[in-house]
Order: sequence, then structure tokens, then C-alpha cells
Amino acid sequence: MARFLKNRKKSHGEAPGSLIFIGNQKMEKSRIRVIQYNKENLVEKEPDKIENAGTYVRKGYLTWINIDGLHDVDLMEKLGNMFQLSSLALEDMLNTDQRPKFFEDEHNVIIILKALTFDKDSSILHSEQISFILGDNYLITLQERVGDYFEPVRERLRNNMGRIRTSEPDYLCYSLFDTLVDSYIMNIEAVGDIIEEQDVTILKGAKRNIIEEIYKHKTEISYIRKSIRPVKEIMTHFIKSDSKFIHKKTHVYLNDLDDLVTQALEAIEIYYTMVSDQLTVYHTNLSNRVNDVMKVLTIFAAIFIPLTFIAGVYGTNFDHLPELHYKYSYFIMLGVMVCMAGVMLLYFKRKKWL
Amino acid sequence: MARFLKNRKKSHGEAPGSLIFIGNQKMEKSRIRVIQYNKENLVEKEPDKIENAGTYVRKGYLTWINIDGLHDVDLMEKLGNMFQLSSLALEDMLNTDQRPKFFEDEHNVIIILKALTFDKDSSILHSEQISFILGDNYLITLQERVGDYFEPVRERLRNNMGRIRTSEPDYLCYSLFDTLVDSYIMNIEAVGDIIEEQDVTILKGAKRNIIEEIYKHKTEISYIRKSIRPVKEIMTHFIKSDSKFIHKKTHVYLNDLDDLVTQALEAIEIYYTMVSDQLTVYHTNLSNRVNDVMKVLTIFAAIFIPLTFIAGVYGTNFDHLPELHYKYSYFIMLGVMVCMAGVMLLYFKRKKWL
Amino acid sequence: MARFLKNRKKSHGEAPGSLIFIGNQKMEKSRIRVIQYNKENLVEKEPDKIENAGTYVRKGYLTWINIDGLHDVDLMEKLGNMFQLSSLALEDMLNTDQRPKFFEDEHNVIIILKALTFDKDSSILHSEQISFILGDNYLITLQERVGDYFEPVRERLRNNMGRIRTSEPDYLCYSLFDTLVDSYIMNIEAVGDIIEEQDVTILKGAKRNIIEEIYKHKTEISYIRKSIRPVKEIMTHFIKSDSKFIHKKTHVYLNDLDDLVTQALEAIEIYYTMVSDQLTVYHTNLSNRVNDVMKVLTIFAAIFIPLTFIAGVYGTNFDHLPELHYKYSYFIMLGVMVCMAGVMLLYFKRKKWL
Amino acid sequence: MARFLKNRKKSHGEAPGSLIFIGNQKMEKSRIRVIQYNKENLVEKEPDKIENAGTYVRKGYLTWINIDGLHDVDLMEKLGNMFQLSSLALEDMLNTDQRPKFFEDEHNVIIILKALTFDKDSSILHSEQISFILGDNYLITLQERVGDYFEPVRERLRNNMGRIRTSEPDYLCYSLFDTLVDSYIMNIEAVGDIIEEQDVTILKGAKRNIIEEIYKHKTEISYIRKSIRPVKEIMTHFIKSDSKFIHKKTHVYLNDLDDLVTQALEAIEIYYTMVSDQLTVYHTNLSNRVNDVMKVLTIFAAIFIPLTFIAGVYGTNFDHLPELHYKYSYFIMLGVMVCMAGVMLLYFKRKKWL
Amino acid sequence: MARFLKNRKKSHGEAPGSLIFIGNQKMEKSRIRVIQYNKENLVEKEPDKIENAGTYVRKGYLTWINIDGLHDVDLMEKLGNMFQLSSLALEDMLNTDQRPKFFEDEHNVIIILKALTFDKDSSILHSEQISFILGDNYLITLQERVGDYFEPVRERLRNNMGRIRTSEPDYLCYSLFDTLVDSYIMNIEAVGDIIEEQDVTILKGAKRNIIEEIYKHKTEISYIRKSIRPVKEIMTHFIKSDSKFIHKKTHVYLNDLDDLVTQALEAIEIYYTMVSDQLTVYHTNLSNRVNDVMKVLTIFAAIFIPLTFIAGVYGTNFDHLPELHYKYSYFIMLGVMVCMAGVMLLYFKRKKWL
Repeated sequence: MARFLKNRKKSHGEAPGSLIFIGNQKMEKSRIRVIQYNKENLVEKEPDKIENAGTYVRKGYLTWINIDGLHDVDLMEKLGNMFQLSSLALEDMLNTDQRPKFFEDEHNVIIILKALTFDKDSSILHSEQISFILGDNYLITLQERVGDYFEPVRERLRNNMGRIRTSEPDYLCYSLFDTLVDSYIMNIEAVGDIIEEQDVTILKGAKRNIIEEIYKHKTEISYIRKSIRPVKEIMTHFIKSDSKFIHKKTHVYLNDLDDLVTQALEAIEIYYTMVSDQLTVYHTNLSNRVNDVMKVLTIFAAIFIPLTFIAGVYGTNFDHLPELHYKYSYFIMLGVMVCMAGVMLLYFKRKKWL
Repeated sequence: MARFLKNRKKSHGEAPGSLIFIGNQKMEKSRIRVIQYNKENLVEKEPDKIENAGTYVRKGYLTWINIDGLHDVDLMEKLGNMFQLSSLALEDMLNTDQRPKFFEDEHNVIIILKALTFDKDSSILHSEQISFILGDNYLITLQERVGDYFEPVRERLRNNMGRIRTSEPDYLCYSLFDTLVDSYIMNIEAVGDIIEEQDVTILKGAKRNIIEEIYKHKTEISYIRKSIRPVKEIMTHFIKSDSKFIHKKTHVYLNDLDDLVTQALEAIEIYYTMVSDQLTVYHTNLSNRVNDVMKVLTIFAAIFIPLTFIAGVYGTNFDHLPELHYKYSYFIMLGVMVCMAGVMLLYFKRKKWL
Repeated sequence: MARFLKNRKKSHGEAPGSLIFIGNQKMEKSRIRVIQYNKENLVEKEPDKIENAGTYVRKGYLTWINIDGLHDVDLMEKLGNMFQLSSLALEDMLNTDQRPKFFEDEHNVIIILKALTFDKDSSILHSEQISFILGDNYLITLQERVGDYFEPVRERLRNNMGRIRTSEPDYLCYSLFDTLVDSYIMNIEAVGDIIEEQDVTILKGAKRNIIEEIYKHKTEISYIRKSIRPVKEIMTHFIKSDSKFIHKKTHVYLNDLDDLVTQALEAIEIYYTMVSDQLTVYHTNLSNRVNDVMKVLTIFAAIFIPLTFIAGVYGTNFDHLPELHYKYSYFIMLGVMVCMAGVMLLYFKRKKWL
Repeated sequence: MARFLKNRKKSHGEAPGSLIFIGNQKMEKSRIRVIQYNKENLVEKEPDKIENAGTYVRKGYLTWINIDGLHDVDLMEKLGNMFQLSSLALEDMLNTDQRPKFFEDEHNVIIILKALTFDKDSSILHSEQISFILGDNYLITLQERVGDYFEPVRERLRNNMGRIRTSEPDYLCYSLFDTLVDSYIMNIEAVGDIIEEQDVTILKGAKRNIIEEIYKHKTEISYIRKSIRPVKEIMTHFIKSDSKFIHKKTHVYLNDLDDLVTQALEAIEIYYTMVSDQLTVYHTNLSNRVNDVMKVLTIFAAIFIPLTFIAGVYGTNFDHLPELHYKYSYFIMLGVMVCMAGVMLLYFKRKKWL
Repeated sequence: MARFLKNRKKSHGEAPGSLIFIGNQKMEKSRIRVIQYNKENLVEKEPDKIENAGTYVRKGYLTWINIDGLHDVDLMEKLGNMFQLSSLALEDMLNTDQRPKFFEDEHNVIIILKALTFDKDSSILHSEQISFILGDNYLITLQERVGDYFEPVRERLRNNMGRIRTSEPDYLCYSLFDTLVDSYIMNIEAVGDIIEEQDVTILKGAKRNIIEEIYKHKTEISYIRKSIRPVKEIMTHFIKSDSKFIHKKTHVYLNDLDDLVTQALEAIEIYYTMVSDQLTVYHTNLSNRVNDVMKVLTIFAAIFIPLTFIAGVYGTNFDHLPELHYKYSYFIMLGVMVCMAGVMLLYFKRKKWL
């Protein structure tokens, strides 16, 4: 199936804003996890229904609701009502082929991003859509499947490390972003590692199917680029936004993250160029080998074809062929042949073919 | 005929603004369909004459006039008079090679777009020009032929689904745009699918005429790009326009659409690069095969040419050729030949030609 | 001679602003044609001297002075005095290698453009410089030779078609521009036609000198691009200019023209890419043919060289060569040879070389 | 030595602003030439010492001091003191690998440019740094060696041609710039001429070392581009500067010059692309020739190898080889051989190899 | 390991702003060097502990603290407390894969840059991260290892050369930047030198492994570009910053430096293109050589294969082969063979293969 642009077929002709899940259902049942905390306390819950999750949002506490599994359209609709999300926003969150996106209204700031996972065996990248809904004292995150991207942040919350427990939801949101950007960098590094290691193989030119691999890596890099490039735009929106939910003091962190995304994009460009160059180098090396093969052929042909011809001449059955009857003819012929071969070898040596 | 820029020959030398239909007449008679509706009622009509269609536009109702078939210059002229369209606008709508365009005056907002249809058999894209005239309480759409792009929207109108029946004409206009953008994405996906499937064929290198196909796909992608790129500009104009016919609350929908167009363009760029890479990979694979063929040739030649030479020497008819008369000469010769062949095979094995 | 940048040698070291004609004199004598008109009347004259032409400019009339032939420096100087043109402006109009240009002062708006003519036989584009001097109630056009670009506009003036007779000189100027832009599009279409037709030839790969043609087309497209790209800038200047000679109501026409120029440039880019791709496709096809030739050679060599060797062995004249004396040796040898050839053919079949 | 970026080694570790001459001393002794003039009078002097030159600067006159030879650090230091040049400015003027540059303070406007000379024999461009110091009533120019770029301007001054004697120093400065830009265009034309002529040679593919030349031209064009690109920036600075030394009325001339630089850069880009294309065309032509050589080889091999095999079979010495003894065997064999060769020729003809 | 983007693995999941050293520890113990000076006095110290270093910062003096070795997290933490550095800033300084960066708050201006060292033996560039903390009357520099980049500046301080002793810390900071930019230019020159020298080798095409070297140089240039490109951004930030620690009069120096960085980047682009071109030239030359080899083969084959065939025909043992019995048959055959060879040679001469 087309990987770089998926059809929104199911919703084709539907009213924009109708809620339909577009994607592969990646888990059986949606899982809701709530972490409610302030400086002093932290409570973790796993309510069955989203309605219950909503009750945790209250003054004096910061509530992080994490929902794994997007296919439950009913749940999403309820969520939309509870937190005053526009139907268009809900639709975008449900469409797992949505381009990364930032939008804000008076109730929420909504950001849709991609998380990347590199499958080392198949050398293929998988992406998962993750949505953030940032409100006054809550943050809701939606993942396609049970993600472990956010576990380190959860750990920090539990252990009350750093400033995370004392900060606003935008800082929590930033911390989660940071985990995603880290995942980008890890993936780029993983692909980059393979590409850099390939250098040696390509210059030696031994492996036959390397061209498939080069091409595959190039496609993977295109895929990463497609996923990360809009993140740069989103960072800019995020930093420039004057939403009341994004506080001045978080800006320095966002700027830092923005830098990291820039660095990631620059690295992608370099790897992209490297892979293109590897293709060229491989092709040139191939020509080098063709040239080598040709030389071997030419040397053999140029030496033995004339000699065979001479032998052929004295193999003719003419009645009058005077050389045949001299006593040393045969040896003279052999001598001439050795000379000719020697001359040819010298010629090829001077041409640097040997 | 030149596909990427058609001559406006017929109008050459004509006063700009003269009404002339430029294009292939795609249907016999223009067909006029009117849908007049408000929250409570919906009436569908098919008047014969455009004059009759005009009478449906009245207060309290939203009227959507859809005209299929552009070749009836007379009809267009009447339409222009009825809705105060400038002659330049009419000329642009009649020229089916018009670049997608947005312009507004105090009477109307006019948008000219392209719809794309991908013919799977010939792998060729056809485009159709669709014009939108957006007024206070009416929307007029002009299509080159009886289009079925808009049927889903008609269905929604009839079934009173979503907010479409209660919204202004700009929302109807957006809904129709949405159908077109969906058609772009479907086409990109269709071409993209083929391109991604080609990967396997190219890496195997089996099919001979694949190069024609690659080249054809590249041209099709250029064609899509040419059609969609100006749509991005138009979305920007549409969103930034302060025309009284475009309402604030429609902006969020337009922004969403704008995002979709961006996503489409990004996918096009990726597919374009992929096709270029496929060309390179194909070429490199070809060199690989040339190399293989060369190796087979060289191995045969390098082994048998020297052996044939030796046989040739003992085929000569010299009177004095001592080796001929030893009892085991023949077997010694065969032995030497086997050895030589063995050495050559070893040599080629070490060179990794075998 | 360098086609893409001509030396201003003659004027080298001259004071900037000295009047010197740079170019090839394309006609013997300058020809002056005057059309003086208002809504009711139209008079056409061909005065001998520019001084006489000047007398036609008067209140209540719009005067269009068209001068064919630029080499008459004296005439130009008089023109400059009559219409208060700066010497720098005159110098630029006389230099036929001038880059398209827009400048305005309190007396005039001056625009220098290129008209393109495609010579179908030689497939070479020729360009001609055309200058426009737009004043309060007059328009002066300067052409290198007697141009027929403007004849359709003259015809419209005579027949009082459209709004041209009732409009200001800027509309006349726009109408003439429109003719030039039409000429660009016709030329792009002409070249584009040839390029699109070449597709078939290239994919078949029959014609040998096609590479020369591809390269020639690429150069022609560079030439068109060089000529048209600055026109885009000039349109922007023209539209944004607040000169009193350019009226608000002409803007809508200029915008339309600007769109056309954009469309032309986009088409040029596509054709440029197509030609580059054709070069690549041609090259790849060539490699395909080399591969085919190689296969034929290898098949013949690989089948017959070993057989010839076997025959050679039994052509030796050893006294003791037991096989020679068996009754069916010859037929056994033939059988073995047929088998070997069969095996080789099967091998090549499996390799898909046959 | 690295041509595109020279090390400032000598000054490495020196305080920025220390005066050190970096470059090759191109003449033995610095030469100072002073032209002092107003509308009525013009005096030319060649003072020995820079101190004397300074005395010529006085009210009512415009003084142009031209210094050839930059290596005299002492002279430069005195110059700096006399005209209040910052040490950083002096350092930049002495470093002959300085990037073209514009800077202004309350005392002077300083511009550093490159003049280009194309050595036709070696096809190599040499550049010379020229600095301009523009003050209230004086202009100082510094050249690496005795330049003849400025002679035409001197001539115009002496002959009181054009407006030069009555204008401010900025007009004189502009006139000198004009000479330099003319030199750029002459050089581009010279290289461009060679490149355009090469077209024929490349398409014929006769000359072997053409690839060296193509590559050399590409490097030269890079060199010109590197020299001219910053000039465009400088023109912008010059035009936008609100220094009191640059007068409004000079702007129209500077704009004209700016246009010329743009034209030069566009031409460079075109030539650059042409050279790249030539490389591709050359390569493709080469493949064409390889293909031709291969065909000749294959035709000879495919015709004669089977025939030789047949002859080989009848050259075997089997006791029982019935065909040998029929009367017409030999002629039948010859006939078969002719038929086979004919079939092969037909086959190659149909494949269009002949 | 991936060279273009290193994973921040260790800090993955850590709270942003936690202090962790990321990089290879390049020295055993951090070394602290303090230079405290004003116009009259200069004191150099090497305190053991950072706490002691802090005491040197006092009114009336400018204090430069240089710390070599970043791995001592404890030291860094103390430094952060003493000079009110944010934990995010500290984290960035400790991460040696940090992208060059500029940020300012009310306490400090912090700049992170890279120094480059070119290892001539391995032709590989190493980079070292250097951080600058610029305060009111102090400058702190952090290096990964004991650098000798700054020695010339230290020398100038000791010898009281130029304006350095009388200027603010921003001028000292600029002087150190200048040393780094010099190091960039030296490295570009070093790589550029090698690339320009390669030209000859490549055009001759002798060396086999040159393709590895070309590819290596291309990667090195990517590496330099990656390191220097952000420096351009930083210069812009630095110049535009309105921090109280950056004084107006330093701007002229920063502008000069900015120019130098631009020049460096332009040179990098040129060298990058040169290396790409070298790859193409090498490939084309290779095809040239393949062509030459082919010609030799074809000439030998085309001359001798037909001759061998003829000899083969007269080597057959037919009973009735009339030519065998004529007296001069053998000599006629030899004559015919010489003629045939002559014709072939002429043919090849005319084809310019000889």
C-alpha cells in the first residue's frame, strides 16, 4: 500500500468533521491511564471509562490522561465533549495518517506528532501518531498503541525528579515532546550507523544486493524526513503561540528542543546525500570491475588469437607448403610465438593493464 | 499536443476578455442543476435555460447552481450578466487550460481549480477544470463535463448531514473543495502505489520496458504537481481574503484543507525523488548485468582460447614435430590442458567471478 | 558568438549614457508609424521624421507611435529630447542585449521586453528587443525590425473592438504586452511539442543523433527561461508601481497577465526537467543495448569456443590418439557437441539471456 | 595552492587589525597617481610620497588618488592616518584574498572589489583586488598592480566627456565600477564563447582530452561566480546606503549597474549548467561509441566463430568420417557456410546493428 | 559509530537539564587557567579548584577563566552556581555533540562553538566543542581538552598588543572566536589543497583507489559544513543581540568575522561541487578506458578471426578439395590474408580506432 500518502477513502464523501478511525487497529481495547499530581501527592489510576477519567481533573492538581488505542470512536466522542474539542480536531486525531499539526483555541492547545520505531530486522521504520491536548490544568495524550515512549517521564513524575512536579502542564508536555525527539534522534542514529558502516562494503564492492539496501535506506531516510520536517514547523508555532496555556518560562526549553530538531534535520540531509553518493560510488566501482573483466578478456584474446591463427596456417593441408618440410620449422614457429606473446605482454604492461 | 502548456491560439489577437471556449467539448449539451435549500427545505431542479436558474436565487435560501459543460458561450455570457462577472473572469473560466486561480470583487469570489482523474489502464491522468462562483447566498459551480465529484456532497445536503444545511455558501464551497482535494490524494495514492510496487520489479531487473514506465510515472507526477501546486497558493488567498463572502468560522476548515494540500505536495516530492532513484537503481542494475555477461564471456574465452591454441599447435603438419611421435603425448597434452583449465578456474574463483 | 551574454565592447570606456546602437542592424531604414485615436476617430500616418510624429501627440487623443529599427541613433536622440527620456534609458533601449527592465520617472514609464520567434527549421529561437514608453496620452513602442506582433492590436483599434478605444494608454500597453506573452507561450508550446514527441523516439532508441537534439532543446529552453524570467519581475514592478500613468482599473488585466507568465515559467521548468530525464533515459536505453549486444556475443562465444576446442583436439596429428580409430568416434563427438550446446542454451535460457 | 580559500596564516594569532600585506607582491614599488579636477581645470601628478598626495585634497576640487601596489605597509599606514581609515579596513584592503566588501563610517565609504583578467592561453582567470575609498571631495583607489582598467575613465576626465567632470566623487566611483563590471562581462563572454564552441566538438566526440577542458571551464566558472556573487550584495548595500557621500542622483546609475551584475550572474548560471550538460552528453556519446565497438566485435565473432567450428570438425583426423569422402562435400560445406553467414547478416540487419 | 548525529542515550529519559557529560573523556583531569588583567597589570594563575578561580573575578579587572576538560560534572555544577548558569545551558555545554548555539539571559551570554582539527595522516577531521560564557567583567571558556587554539591570544594579552588589554570582555571573546574561524579556514584550505591537487591524478586516471579518497573528501566537507553552517547563524545572533555584555564598538569586528565565515562557507560549497565533479570526471574517464580496451580487443578479433577461419577451411581433410593441390595455393592464401588484414586496418583507421 502507498506508504507516503494514505487515502482517506473511508471518509470520502463524509461530512468533514465526522468521526471515523482511519488506520490499523493496533490493540484490542483502549487503555486509559491517569496520573494526577501536585507538588506533594501523586495518584495513578486506570479507569475503565473515559467519563471517570474526567472526574480527576480538578483544581490544585495537574492531571495527565493517557489513552492508548484510538479505534474506540465512542470514547473519542465523549472525550471531545468533556474537553470541548472541535469535531475537526477529533477527526484529525483519529486519522493516523494525519500530517503533524498544531492548533489552538480558547479551550485547548492541540498538537499531533509522530513517534518513530526502527525495526532493525527489516530495516523499516514504523510510525505511530501521538496527539497532545494541553489545557489549563490537564494534559491528554493519545497513542495508537500502548507506548513505552513516555515511561521515563512517568518515572520522573513518580520520583519527583527535576522541576516536573512543580511545573505547569506545558512543561509536562515539553518533557513528553523531548522523549519523542529523542526517539527521532535514536532512529536517525540507527539508520546513520548502518549507512556509515556500508561505506566500507561499498568501496570494496563485494556484496551484490547492496544496491537494494542503499535504495531501501534512501527510502527510510525520506520517511524520517517526512515525519520530522513538520515537527520543525510545529515547534515554531508552539514557541510563537500566545496561548495562555504556554508559559513564558517554558520557552527556553522549547527553544532547546527546536535546536535539537534542527540538528536532526541537518543530519538527515547529510545522510541522504551520503546514500546518494554511495549509489554513485557503487556504480563507478562497478564500471571499474567491468573494466577489469574486459582487460582480462582482451589480454587473453589478443595474445592467443594471433598465435592460434599461425598454428592454423601450418595446419592446412596444401600440397606445396614449403615451411612444413624444413627441419627446424616447428621450433622456429614456437620461437616466433613466444616472441609475439612477449611483445603483447610488454604492450599491455606499458598500457598499465597488467 | 503539448500537454503542459496549451496555446491560447484561438484567442490570439482577440481582445482580452472576449468569450471563447478553449478546450475539447466533452459533452453535447450543457446541463444545469439547481439545489435550493435552507435548514428546513431542499428543492432540486434541472431548468433548461440559465435564465430560469437565476430565478431560484432568493433571500432566505441558499442556491447552488451546477453547470456541466462549458462550451455554450451564450449561456456563459448570460450567466456573466446575471451575476455581474467581469468578462476577464468569464474568459478564464472558459479557457480549460487556465492555471488554478483566485480572484474576488465586490460581487463574487471566483476560484478556478482542477479535478484529476487517473485512468488506470493507460496510467494517464486527465484533468478537468472546475470553477466556483461564490456570492452572498448562492454558489455556482462550472464543470467541463457531468462530474460525479460532487455527488457525495449532494447526498449530504439531501440527508441534512453535518452542519452543511445550516451554514453559509462558503462552507458549501469548502465542502466541494474538500471533495477535489480528496480526489488529488486518491490520485497520488494510485500513482504512488504503482511506484512503490515497482520497487521490487526494478531491483530484480527482469522487465525490459520498465524504463518506459518509470519515465511515464515521472511525467504523471510532474503533471499532478503542476495541477496541485497552485492550489496551495489559492488556499492561502482564500484564507487571507477579507471578502464578506468568506466567514471567520470557515477558516478552521480551510486551514485543515490547506494542511491536506501541503501533505499531498510533500508526498508528490517524495514520489518524484523515488522515481528518479528508481531510474538510477535500474541503470546500476543494468551495469551489474553487463558485468555478469562479461564475466561469463571472459571465463569461457580465457579457458578455451589457450587450450584451442595448444591443440592448434599439434594440428600443424610439420614434418619434424617430435612430440607427435611419443606414445603418451596425447595424454600428456590432455593432462596439461586440464591443469591449465583448473588454474584458470581457481584464478577466477579468487577474483570472485564465479 | 556567446549567445547568453553579449559584450558591450563598443561602449567599453564610453561614458555611461552615451548613445550607441549595440546589435545587428536588422532593417535598412527606421519606419515610423503613428496611430492617433479617440473614441470617435482613428488616424494612421507614416511620417518621415520623428519630429513630425511628435506633433500628433495632443490633448483629447491617444497617440501610439511605433518605430521599427533601432539603429538610427540620431532619431533616438531626437525622440529622447521630445519625450524627456534620460540618456541612460535611451542607452538601454539601444543596447539590444539589454536585460528586460522597468523604470519610471515623472515623465514616463519605460519597459524593455523581449519578443521571441522560434525558427522551426533550425529549431533555434531568435529574440527581438521591444521597448515601451508610456506617457500621459501617448505610447511609444520601439522594435528592432518591422514586427508583426502588434498587428492584431492595430486591427482591434481600427475595428473599435472591446474597450481598447475608450481606455487609457496603459491599457493599450497592456494589450501589446499580452501579444508578447502570447508569443512566449506559443514558443514554449512549439518547443514543448517537439520535446513531448521525442519521448517515443527516445524510448525506442532508434535515432542516433537524438542526443544532439536533446541537448539543443535544453539550450533553447535555457534561452526562453533567460528571456521570460525577468518578465515576471517586470510584471510585479508594473503592478506595484504608483506611477500616475498606470491606472487602478488596468491592474486586474495585469494580474491576469502575471498569472500567464507564471504559468509559462512553470511549463518551462517542467520541460527542462523532461529534457534532462530524456537524456538519462536515452543513456539507460543505450546501456540496455550494450547489454543486448554483449549477450549475443557471449552466447555465440560460450557455445562455439568449447566445441571448436574439441574439434581442435581431434585435429591433432599425434601418432597415438586412440579415439581416432574407433568406428563411431566421429558420431560420438558430434553427439557430445550437440549435448554441450544444448546445456549451454538451457543455461542461457535460465539466465533469461534468450 | 588552494585557490578558492587562501589561509591568512601570516596574520594567524596577530591582533585583528594589525597591518600585514597578504598576497604576492606584483610590482616593485608602489606608484601614486593623482588627478585633481573641477569643471574648468584638471591637473595630473605623480607624487613620490603619499604625504604629498594628501595635500592635493582641497575645497573646490575633486581629487582622485590612485595607488598601484599594496605591499608598502608603511604607505598604507600613513594613508590610514590621513583619511581616518580604521585599522580593520586597512587590514582588509591589504589582504588580497578578502571577499568583496562594503562598509561605511562617518569619514568614508569603503568598497573592496575584484577585477578579473582571463588569460586566453592557459584558460585561467586571474583576479586582482581593487579598493575604493570614497570621501567628501576625494576618491582613493588601491590596485595590486598598475592597472589599465581605469584608463578609459582617465581619458574621459581629460577630455571632459559626459557629466563626469561636473559630478560628485560618487559618480566617479560609479564610473570606475562600471569599468570593472564591464571586465566581468568580457570575461564571462570569453569563457562563454569557448563553452559554446565546444558544443560541436563534444557532439562529434572526436577530441580525447575534451573532458579535461570541460572540467577546467567548470572550475573557471565557479571562480567567476565566487568573485561576482558578492558584488551583487555590494551593489545593494551601495544603493541602500544613506551615507552622505552617495547622492540620490547617482542611484539611477547604480541601479543600472546592479542590473548588469544580475545579468552577468544569470549568464554564469546558464554556462554552468551548459558545462554540466556537456559532461553528460560527452559521457553518453562515449557509451554510444562503446556500443558501436561492441557491435563490430559481435558481428565478426558471431559470423566467423561458428564457421571456424565447422571447418574444425572436418579438420579432425577420425578414421571413419564419412563426409570427407563424398565428392562434393567440400563445396556443400562452403555453401552451408555462406548460407549461415548470410542468415547472420540478415539477423544483424534486422537488429539494426548494420 | 554514527558521526553526524550522536545519540544522547545516556540522558534518555533523564529530566532535561540534568548534568551528564556526553562524549569521550579526552584528558584525565580538568585544568583551570585564570588570566586576570587590566590595562596596567596581568596575573596568570592555575587554581586547583573552581571555587578559587571564582575569587579572581572582581571590579576593575577583566578575568578570563579557561577550563580544559569537560568530564568533571561536579566542577561544572559549581561553575553553574557561581555564575548563575541555567541547568539547560550547562547540559548543552556538557553534551559534546551539541549543535553550535547562542543564548543569553540577564546574567550571561553563552555561545557554544566547534573547533576543527584536520589529521593529515588519516585525512579525517576531528572536532572539539568550545563554550564561551560572557559576563560583565569576565569570560569563561570551556574546552574538551587542553587546546592550543587560544595560545596566540594569551600571548597578545601578555605582550599588551593591540587594543585587547583595554577592551571589554566581548572583545576578548571576539578575539578567541577569530582564532576558531581561522582554524576553520586553515582546515578548509588543507582539504581544498588536497582536492585541487587531486585534479591532475583524476584526469590521468592512474590511481585505482582514488574513488575512495574522493568519497572520503566529500564526507569530510559535509562534516566541515555541518560544523560551520550554524556558526553563521550564531554570528547573526551575536551581532543582533542587544545584551548589555556586547558593546556597539565590537560590532565592526563581529561583522568582519561574519564575512570571513561567509567566505568559508562559499569556499566549502565550491569544493563540494568540485569533488562531485571529480567523481563524474573519474567515471567518464573510466568509460573512456573501457572503450579503449574494447577497441584493442575488437581490432585483434576482427582481423584474426576471419583469417583463422580461412586457415581452418584448408585444414579440413576432404578427399576432394581442389585448391590444396595447386602449386601456389598456399602463397595465394597468404596474400589474400594480408589483403584482408590490410582492409580491416584501413577500416579501423577510418573509424579512428587506431
